[in-house]
Amino acid sequence: MKKYAIIVAGGSGLRMGSALPKQFLLIHERPVLWYTLNTFLKSFKDVQIILVLPADFYDTGRTICDEIVSQHPILTVVGGETRFLSVQKGLTLVKEQSVIFVHDAVRCLVSPSLIHHCFEEAIRFGSAIPCIESKDSVRILDGSGQRAVERTDVKLVQTPQTFLSEILLKAYQSADKSSFTDDAMVVEASNQPIHLVTGEIENIKITTPLDLAIAEKLLEPSRRAS
Amino acid sequence: MKKYAIIVAGGSGLRMGSALPKQFLLIHERPVLWYTLNTFLKSFKDVQIILVLPADFYDTGRTICDEIVSQHPILTVVGGETRFLSVQKGLTLVKEQSVIFVHDAVRCLVSPSLIHHCFEEAIRFGSAIPCIESKDSVRILDGSGQRAVERTDVKLVQTPQTFLSEILLKAYQSADKSSFTDDAMVVEASNQPIHLVTGEIENIKITTPLDLAIAEKLLEPSRRAS
Repeated sequence: MKKYAIIVAGGSGLRMGSALPKQFLLIHERPVLWYTLNTFLKSFKDVQIILVLPADFYDTGRTICDEIVSQHPILTVVGGETRFLSVQKGLTLVKEQSVIFVHDAVRCLVSPSLIHHCFEEAIRFGSAIPCIESKDSVRILDGSGQRAVERTDVKLVQTPQTFLSEILLKAYQSADKSSFTDDAMVVEASNQPIHLVTGEIENIKITTPLDLAIAEKLLEPSRRAS
Repeated sequence: MKKYAIIVAGGSGLRMGSALPKQFLLIHERPVLWYTLNTFLKSFKDVQIILVLPADFYDTGRTICDEIVSQHPILTVVGGETRFLSVQKGLTLVKEQSVIFVHDAVRCLVSPSLIHHCFEEAIRFGSAIPCIESKDSVRILDGSGQRAVERTDVKLVQTPQTFLSEILLKAYQSADKSSFTDDAMVVEASNQPIHLVTGEIENIKITTPLDLAIAEKLLEPSRRAS
């Protein structure tokens, strides 16, 4: 089955202020995004990557791609103002019935084995959404205040969120769902069920200096060789 | 106001199997627990620490305490089978009206400023429960399956959970609530409101090798000196 990976590397980049968006920060002399792209290409030699870039950093992203040799050269497109609009733009480049991964560029610690697992489960169930449990107790705010919920009932959602193309394309064709922060919500809003799979503790989103320090540790050349 | 810090260093330790419980693992040649105890003593010189230890590792914990010089020597007690029973045993050593911190021994990255903030808020509101927001999208399992919830409505609960002694002692006096995984739930079950405060991203629970690697990074001698 054909495979596409839409790597979402930010919308306008405005949320980051004037700083370099996190996906371009260097870890052991390579940008965060470089690790993400390479892990997908290492997982499936025949995957077609569609990289969605912020307009202000299009050239930065394109330069990273041009240094990477792959069977299908990486396609790039400028993103929209929201995650929904960015994924929607990426999906315009999907040309075949396929399995589509949608992945945050800043989750550069994803493993090939999670990518493979999501692929297999999406073929079987139509979708595969990696989640982990919270280690902390959890409270939910609701109209009247807040309440405790069972920790084991709470799933923290990661990417790659993975779908059969017919399901994802249909969900993104309908009205704008810009308020949705992930693809599972978009698909669910089109009345399709969502299949959860077990994610990875290490598959963190690089958003703080602490995260960057963790990634530096986990991506030490000695570890990557093993 | 008098201050007690109940540091919960595990019940029977059985969940860890045969390995050394995480609170005794070494980071830069010091046990995780050592950092936790020292941060509390650094925060308030007059705090009375009550350390709740697993029976099998009582001597290990006591040795760590004996190396630490403090205004009030650290009190130690053997814990129970559950977190609830362990905290309850710790509370038997509280002798004065006070502010009581209940803290996980494995949260060795807590900062003095968070401890101070919890103290001030507990005096004002009766309780202070540090929480952070999830960076990931969140789904909740319920009877009929699972559903997405607004990420900003989800609070991941940390420690030190901090209370005026009259509130916490009363909550722990009533029937056994062994199924509760934190003190906020116990207090809430006694019909007292809970006050949330902003926690710290770095204030993680050391439970996995990844967490230990993070703590090693954040507790590097060069950082601690700053």
